[in-house]
Amino acid sequence: MSRAYNFCAGPATLPEPVLRQAREEMLDWRGTGMSVMEMSHRSDEFVEIAETAEKDLRELAGVSDDYAVLFMQGGASSQFSTIPLNLLGDKTSADYVNTGIWSKKAIAEASRYGQVNVVASSESSGFASIPDQDSWATSADAAYLHYTPNETIGGLEFDFVPESGSVPLVADMSSTMLSRPLDVSKFGLIYAGAQKNIGPSGLVVVIIRKDLLGKALKITPTMMNYQSLRIMTPCTTRRRHTPGTSQAWYSNG
Amino acid sequence: MSRAYNFCAGPATLPEPVLRQAREEMLDWRGTGMSVMEMSHRSDEFVEIAETAEKDLRELAGVSDDYAVLFMQGGASSQFSTIPLNLLGDKTSADYVNTGIWSKKAIAEASRYGQVNVVASSESSGFASIPDQDSWATSADAAYLHYTPNETIGGLEFDFVPESGSVPLVADMSSTMLSRPLDVSKFGLIYAGAQKNIGPSGLVVVIIRKDLLGKALKITPTMMNYQSLRIMTPCTTRRRHTPGTSQAWYSNG
Repeated sequence: MSRAYNFCAGPATLPEPVLRQAREEMLDWRGTGMSVMEMSHRSDEFVEIAETAEKDLRELAGVSDDYAVLFMQGGASSQFSTIPLNLLGDKTSADYVNTGIWSKKAIAEASRYGQVNVVASSESSGFASIPDQDSWATSADAAYLHYTPNETIGGLEFDFVPESGSVPLVADMSSTMLSRPLDVSKFGLIYAGAQKNIGPSGLVVVIIRKDLLGKALKITPTMMNYQSLRIMTPCTTRRRHTPGTSQAWYSNG
Repeated sequence: MSRAYNFCAGPATLPEPVLRQAREEMLDWRGTGMSVMEMSHRSDEFVEIAETAEKDLRELAGVSDDYAVLFMQGGASSQFSTIPLNLLGDKTSADYVNTGIWSKKAIAEASRYGQVNVVASSESSGFASIPDQDSWATSADAAYLHYTPNETIGGLEFDFVPESGSVPLVADMSSTMLSRPLDVSKFGLIYAGAQKNIGPSGLVVVIIRKDLLGKALKITPTMMNYQSLRIMTPCTTRRRHTPGTSQAWYSNG
């Protein structure tokens, strides 16, 4: 067997020890007689897996208790709508920086739910450079400021973290998360599709400052509401002994 | 190794031959040098996997070409909002039958997007019986009629398929899909979380009559829009050679 080097678009290579462990545990996870895929999301075993994953991610990425960590389905593209639905609150607009295709997709989705102000764009340079932050037309009344630290299709990467003052800074870190040290405290919300540096595709990690929870618009589907998911995670559910909840940690429904 | 019998809430047991095959292919899927999780969703290999899964499901469930088959993320609970967002169209209301907890969840979510008429309820019988269809207060102008063929928590199951006339019939078949023969032609939309009879949790199968596509409300996130997903599936994308699309078949984003 020869393992491939994979630099394609989409999912990246997973570490061989991880795949070997998954293979070993496929029919019997640590004596339970079942795979992880077959476990109840409310079982002690799965709750431990979920809690360990969160603890490990907090340690690796330096995430303090001021932030909630959510493991959601749908990939980063789902967050393009989930973010405005959860963060617009009683504000009417959000600021976006357009540095390429992923920015544009995020802008198009957010435009469904509020006014999007494109405060800076790389378009005039053919998406080859990022305008100096001095020239950005940001608003102190924006619900948040969104940017894409690394545009993987055009190949345009920020070499700085924007200053957003009291406006929460939101970043799509799908291709950069866990690739370098990160000062999480500069951000209101960080999201990252797992398929590059974290795990298999289909999972998206959301790190959100806790004071930003609870502002979802009424049209937000429950399965996209950060606050609902936060409450429904099995570890929390179990500690609170809430009857009748059946929410998977991975928001499987 | 002793395999467990699992009759818990949540995911069911997966067939041992399937788990064995997944185990064998974990580090090298048929000579590609990678697992399925590491493959580009646009690769020939993954497109073949996706096309085969759809073909097999169509054969097993008897799904004609009049219907689109979508494999989506989020579980059946996400469909509670995805369905009204996609099917309400220019109608103002939808009819729902309340036979238990899953019905109630579906009703609560749909109420965010339009008027929900509960046309029949098992509440007065303590959710022990289903009212005769003669007594249902259905409307010919409803966008659709939704019911839950089997309420797994209360244990209440329909022994008939409701007649809905020209109103599309929508059914949450999470616990019954593929457990018995099914006349798909009676339905406008069938959805089923995969975790009971189809595959691992986190996947939901949506079977939708093609004339019901293309009616999504403007507030529908692209990743929840059946029409967008239908167009963006890799097999379709490839045949049409649409540049710049990067949508995973499993709607991974």
